Amino acid sequence: MDEIPEAVKEFVRAAPVCRIATARANGKPHAIPVCPAFDGEATLYVDLTRHGASAKALRENPRVAVLIDEYYDDWSKLKAVILHCTAEEIEGEELRSAWELFHEKFPQGAAIGWSARLTMGLRIYAWTEWGIVAELPYYPE
Amino acid sequence: MDEIPEAVKEFVRAAPVCRIATARANGKPHAIPVCPAFDGEATLYVDLTRHGASAKALRENPRVAVLIDEYYDDWSKLKAVILHCTAEEIEGEELRSAWELFHEKFPQGAAIGWSARLTMGLRIYAWTEWGIVAELPYYPE
Repeated sequence: MDEIPEAVKEFVRAAPVCRIATARANGKPHAIPVCPAFDGEATLYVDLTRHGASAKALRENPRVAVLIDEYYDDWSKLKAVILHCTAEEIEGEELRSAWELFHEKFPQGAAIGWSARLTMGLRIYAWTEWGIVAELPYYPE
Repeated sequence: MDEIPEAVKEFVRAAPVCRIATARANGKPHAIPVCPAFDGEATLYVDLTRHGASAKALRENPRVAVLIDEYYDDWSKLKAVILHCTAEEIEGEELRSAWELFHEKFPQGAAIGWSARLTMGLRIYAWTEWGIVAELPYYPE
Protein backbone atom coordinates (compact mmCIF):
# COMPACT_ATOMS: atom_id res chain seq x y z
CA MET A 1 0.00 0.00 0.00
CA ASP A 2 0.99 3.68 -0.21
CA GLU A 3 2.99 4.73 2.79
CA ILE A 4 0.89 6.48 5.44
CA PRO A 5 2.01 10.14 5.74
CA GLU A 6 3.38 11.17 9.13
CA ALA A 7 0.51 13.63 9.70
CA VAL A 8 -2.03 10.85 9.15
CA LYS A 9 -0.11 8.51 11.46
CA GLU A 10 -0.16 11.19 14.13
CA PHE A 11 -3.92 11.65 13.71
CA VAL A 12 -4.44 7.88 14.10
CA ARG A 13 -2.05 7.66 17.04
CA ALA A 14 -3.78 10.48 18.93
CA ALA A 15 -7.39 9.39 18.37
CA PRO A 16 -9.06 8.35 21.64
CA VAL A 17 -11.83 6.57 19.78
CA CYS A 18 -12.41 4.99 16.39
CA ARG A 19 -15.46 3.38 14.86
CA ILE A 20 -15.07 -0.06 13.37
CA ALA A 21 -17.32 -1.55 10.72
CA THR A 22 -17.58 -5.30 10.33
CA ALA A 23 -19.81 -7.54 8.24
CA ARG A 24 -21.34 -10.91 9.03
CA ALA A 25 -21.10 -13.75 6.52
CA ASN A 26 -24.75 -13.04 5.63
CA GLY A 27 -23.87 -9.43 4.76
CA LYS A 28 -25.22 -7.71 7.86
CA PRO A 29 -22.98 -4.79 8.78
CA HIS A 30 -22.20 -3.71 12.33
CA ALA A 31 -20.43 -0.70 13.84
CA ILE A 32 -19.13 0.07 17.30
CA PRO A 33 -16.95 2.74 18.89
CA VAL A 34 -13.75 1.39 20.40
CA CYS A 35 -10.55 2.79 21.91
CA PRO A 36 -7.59 2.05 19.63
CA ALA A 37 -3.83 1.94 20.02
CA PHE A 38 -1.61 2.33 16.95
CA ASP A 39 1.77 0.64 16.55
CA GLY A 40 2.95 3.56 14.43
CA GLU A 41 3.33 1.44 11.31
CA ALA A 42 0.51 -0.66 9.92
CA THR A 43 -1.42 -2.23 12.82
CA LEU A 44 -4.18 -0.76 14.94
CA TYR A 45 -4.99 -2.64 18.15
CA VAL A 46 -8.48 -2.91 19.61
CA ASP A 47 -9.80 -4.99 22.48
CA LEU A 48 -13.29 -6.48 22.08
CA THR A 49 -15.66 -8.51 24.21
CA ARG A 50 -15.52 -12.10 23.00
CA HIS A 51 -19.29 -12.39 22.92
CA GLY A 52 -20.16 -9.16 21.15
CA ALA A 53 -21.54 -8.69 17.66
CA SER A 54 -18.21 -7.41 16.32
CA ALA A 55 -16.29 -10.45 17.58
CA LYS A 56 -18.93 -12.70 16.05
CA ALA A 57 -18.66 -10.91 12.70
CA LEU A 58 -14.85 -11.09 12.75
CA ARG A 59 -14.92 -14.86 13.32
CA GLU A 60 -16.99 -15.14 10.14
CA ASN A 61 -15.20 -12.43 8.12
CA PRO A 62 -11.93 -10.82 9.25
CA ARG A 63 -12.31 -7.67 7.14
CA VAL A 64 -12.74 -4.42 9.03
CA ALA A 65 -13.09 -0.79 8.01
CA VAL A 66 -11.84 1.59 10.69
CA LEU A 67 -13.07 5.16 10.65
CA ILE A 68 -11.27 7.84 12.62
CA ASP A 69 -12.81 11.23 12.12
CA GLU A 70 -13.36 14.61 13.69
CA TYR A 71 -16.61 16.43 13.13
CA TYR A 72 -16.97 20.21 13.17
CA ASP A 73 -20.01 22.32 12.43
CA ASP A 74 -17.62 24.23 10.19
CA TRP A 75 -17.46 21.68 7.43
CA SER A 76 -14.26 23.11 6.04
CA LYS A 77 -12.50 21.59 9.07
CA LEU A 78 -13.75 18.01 8.70
CA LYS A 79 -11.07 15.37 9.00
CA ALA A 80 -11.25 11.62 8.47
CA VAL A 81 -9.14 8.56 7.91
CA ILE A 82 -10.54 5.23 6.73
CA LEU A 83 -8.31 2.20 7.29
CA HIS A 84 -9.09 -1.01 5.45
CA CYS A 85 -7.83 -3.89 7.55
CA THR A 86 -7.76 -7.60 8.16
CA ALA A 87 -8.21 -8.55 11.81
CA GLU A 88 -6.35 -11.25 13.66
CA GLU A 89 -6.19 -12.13 17.32
CA ILE A 90 -2.77 -11.28 18.69
CA GLU A 91 -0.78 -13.16 21.31
CA GLY A 92 2.62 -13.45 22.99
CA GLU A 93 5.02 -10.54 22.69
CA GLU A 94 2.73 -8.58 20.39
CA LEU A 95 -0.13 -8.85 22.90
CA ARG A 96 2.15 -7.65 25.66
CA SER A 97 3.36 -4.63 23.69
CA ALA A 98 -0.17 -3.75 22.54
CA TRP A 99 -1.23 -3.62 26.18
CA GLU A 100 1.68 -1.36 27.02
CA LEU A 101 0.26 1.02 24.43
CA PHE A 102 -3.27 0.69 25.85
CA HIS A 103 -2.14 1.31 29.42
CA GLU A 104 -0.10 4.34 28.45
CA LYS A 105 -2.83 5.86 26.28
CA PHE A 106 -5.82 5.05 28.48
CA PRO A 107 -4.91 5.36 32.18
CA GLN A 108 -8.63 5.44 32.99
CA GLY A 109 -8.76 1.76 31.98
CA ALA A 110 -6.61 0.64 34.87
CA ALA A 111 -9.08 2.13 37.32
CA ILE A 112 -11.77 -0.29 36.17
CA GLY A 113 -9.51 -3.29 35.67
CA TRP A 114 -9.56 -3.25 31.88
CA SER A 115 -7.38 -6.10 30.62
CA ALA A 116 -7.14 -8.30 27.56
CA ARG A 117 -10.28 -9.92 26.25
CA LEU A 118 -10.24 -10.50 22.50
CA THR A 119 -7.35 -8.23 21.51
CA MET A 120 -7.15 -7.89 17.77
CA GLY A 121 -4.44 -6.58 15.51
CA LEU A 122 -6.09 -4.80 12.61
CA ARG A 123 -3.55 -5.11 9.77
CA ILE A 124 -3.93 -2.10 7.50
CA TYR A 125 -3.74 -2.93 3.80
CA ALA A 126 -5.25 0.26 2.34
CA TRP A 127 -6.27 3.68 3.58
CA THR A 128 -7.78 6.95 2.53
CA GLU A 129 -8.09 10.31 4.26
CA TRP A 130 -9.38 13.83 3.83
CA GLY A 131 -8.85 17.05 5.69
CA ILE A 132 -5.42 16.05 7.02
CA VAL A 133 -3.16 15.95 3.96
CA ALA A 134 -5.68 15.70 1.12
CA GLU A 135 -8.13 18.50 0.49
CA LEU A 136 -11.49 17.57 1.92
CA PRO A 137 -14.43 16.84 -0.37
CA TYR A 138 -16.71 19.74 -1.07
CA TYR A 139 -19.70 18.05 0.55
CA PRO A 140 -19.70 16.11 3.80
CA GLU A 141 -19.67 12.39 3.47
CA MET B 1 -39.24 -3.69 16.82
CA ASP B 2 -39.25 -2.33 20.37
CA GLU B 3 -40.37 1.26 20.47
CA ILE B 4 -37.47 3.71 20.62
CA PRO B 5 -37.54 5.57 23.96
CA GLU B 6 -38.00 9.33 23.77
CA ALA B 7 -34.54 9.98 25.25
CA VAL B 8 -32.94 7.84 22.55
CA LYS B 9 -34.97 9.59 19.83
CA GLU B 10 -33.79 12.92 21.17
CA PHE B 11 -30.16 11.73 21.10
CA VAL B 12 -30.57 10.62 17.47
CA ARG B 13 -32.39 13.82 16.49
CA ALA B 14 -29.70 16.05 17.97
CA ALA B 15 -26.65 14.24 16.60
CA PRO B 16 -24.77 16.37 14.05
CA VAL B 17 -22.91 13.36 12.73
CA CYS B 18 -23.34 9.60 12.56
CA ARG B 19 -21.11 6.88 11.21
CA ILE B 20 -22.64 4.41 8.79
CA ALA B 21 -21.33 0.92 8.13
CA THR B 22 -22.11 -0.82 4.87
CA ALA B 23 -20.93 -4.08 3.33
CA ARG B 24 -20.21 -4.96 -0.29
CA ALA B 25 -21.59 -8.17 -1.77
CA ASN B 26 -18.09 -9.64 -1.40
CA GLY B 27 -18.17 -8.92 2.35
CA LYS B 28 -15.89 -5.87 2.41
CA PRO B 29 -17.13 -3.42 5.03
CA HIS B 30 -16.97 0.35 4.69
CA ALA B 31 -17.62 3.22 7.11
CA ILE B 32 -18.06 6.95 6.64
CA PRO B 33 -19.17 9.89 8.75
CA VAL B 34 -22.31 11.58 7.48
CA CYS B 35 -24.73 14.26 8.68
CA PRO B 36 -28.13 12.71 9.44
CA ALA B 37 -31.67 14.00 9.83
CA PHE B 38 -34.19 11.95 11.81
CA ASP B 39 -37.90 11.88 11.03
CA GLY B 40 -38.65 11.30 14.71
CA GLU B 41 -40.11 7.84 14.13
CA ALA B 42 -38.19 5.13 12.31
CA THR B 43 -36.27 6.68 9.40
CA LEU B 44 -32.90 8.40 9.39
CA TYR B 45 -32.05 10.40 6.28
CA VAL B 46 -28.56 10.70 4.85
CA ASP B 47 -27.34 12.21 1.59
CA LEU B 48 -24.49 10.42 -0.19
CA THR B 49 -22.39 11.01 -3.27
CA ARG B 50 -23.65 8.68 -5.99
CA HIS B 51 -20.15 7.52 -6.86
CA GLY B 52 -18.79 6.87 -3.38
CA ALA B 53 -17.97 3.54 -1.80
CA SER B 54 -21.04 3.65 0.46
CA ALA B 55 -23.43 4.19 -2.46
CA LYS B 56 -21.76 1.34 -4.33
CA ALA B 57 -22.13 -0.95 -1.32
CA LEU B 58 -25.79 -0.01 -0.84
CA ARG B 59 -26.60 -0.85 -4.46
CA GLU B 60 -25.25 -4.33 -3.77
CA ASN B 61 -26.60 -4.72 -0.23
CA PRO B 62 -29.09 -2.30 1.33
CA ARG B 63 -28.27 -3.17 4.94
CA VAL B 64 -26.71 -0.43 7.02
CA ALA B 65 -25.61 -0.13 10.63
CA VAL B 66 -25.74 3.43 11.91
CA LEU B 67 -23.64 4.34 14.92
CA ILE B 68 -24.33 7.51 16.85
CA ASP B 69 -22.08 7.88 19.83
CA GLU B 70 -20.42 10.35 22.15
CA TYR B 71 -16.95 9.65 23.45
CA TYR B 72 -15.64 10.93 26.77
CA ASP B 73 -12.33 10.23 28.45
CA ASP B 74 -14.48 9.53 31.49
CA TRP B 75 -15.75 6.17 30.32
CA SER B 76 -18.67 6.25 32.74
CA LYS B 77 -20.22 8.89 30.44
CA LEU B 78 -20.02 6.96 27.16
CA LYS B 79 -23.22 6.99 25.11
CA ALA B 80 -24.09 5.14 21.93
CA VAL B 81 -26.99 4.09 19.75
CA ILE B 82 -26.71 1.51 17.00
CA LEU B 83 -29.52 1.49 14.44
CA HIS B 84 -29.90 -1.49 12.15
CA CYS B 85 -31.49 -0.30 8.93
CA THR B 86 -32.42 -1.05 5.36
CA ALA B 87 -31.59 1.78 2.96
CA GLU B 88 -33.77 2.97 0.10
CA GLU B 89 -33.50 6.00 -2.13
CA ILE B 90 -36.30 8.41 -1.35
CA GLU B 91 -38.22 10.61 -3.75
CA GLY B 92 -41.24 12.90 -4.10
CA GLU B 93 -42.83 14.27 -0.96
CA GLU B 94 -40.54 12.31 1.36
CA LEU B 95 -37.46 13.71 -0.39
CA ARG B 96 -38.84 17.22 -0.04
CA SER B 97 -39.56 16.84 3.67
CA ALA B 98 -36.18 15.20 4.32
CA TRP B 99 -34.50 18.25 2.79
CA GLU B 100 -36.53 20.56 4.99
CA LEU B 101 -35.03 18.70 7.91
CA PHE B 102 -31.50 18.94 6.46
CA HIS B 103 -31.80 22.65 5.76
CA GLU B 104 -33.13 23.39 9.22
CA LYS B 105 -30.52 21.29 11.00
CA PHE B 106 -27.50 22.19 8.87
CA PRO B 107 -27.67 25.84 7.83
CA GLN B 108 -23.97 25.66 6.92
CA GLY B 109 -24.95 23.40 4.01
CA ALA B 110 -26.80 26.17 2.20
CA ALA B 111 -23.63 28.27 2.14
CA ILE B 112 -21.89 25.67 -0.03
CA GLY B 113 -24.88 24.73 -2.15
CA TRP B 114 -25.50 21.33 -0.59
CA SER B 115 -28.52 19.75 -2.27
CA ALA B 116 -29.87 16.29 -2.98
CA ARG B 117 -27.50 13.74 -4.45
CA LEU B 118 -28.34 10.16 -3.44
CA THR B 119 -30.68 10.83 -0.53
CA MET B 120 -31.42 7.63 1.35
CA GLY B 121 -34.06 6.78 3.90
CA LEU B 122 -32.52 4.37 6.38
CA ARG B 123 -35.49 2.37 7.68
CA ILE B 124 -34.75 1.31 11.23
CA TYR B 125 -35.77 -2.28 12.01
CA ALA B 126 -33.78 -2.85 15.21
CA TRP B 127 -31.72 -0.77 17.61
CA THR B 128 -29.62 -0.96 20.72
CA GLU B 129 -28.16 1.70 22.99
CA TRP B 130 -26.08 2.22 26.09
CA GLY B 131 -25.45 5.18 28.33
CA ILE B 132 -28.74 6.90 27.49
CA VAL B 133 -31.44 4.69 29.01
CA ALA B 134 -29.58 1.41 29.51
CA GLU B 135 -26.65 1.21 31.87
CA LEU B 136 -23.44 1.29 29.88
CA PRO B 137 -21.22 -1.76 29.68
CA TYR B 138 -18.42 -1.95 32.18
CA TYR B 139 -15.74 -1.89 29.51
CA PRO B 140 -15.67 0.37 26.47
CA GLU B 141 -16.78 -1.24 23.25
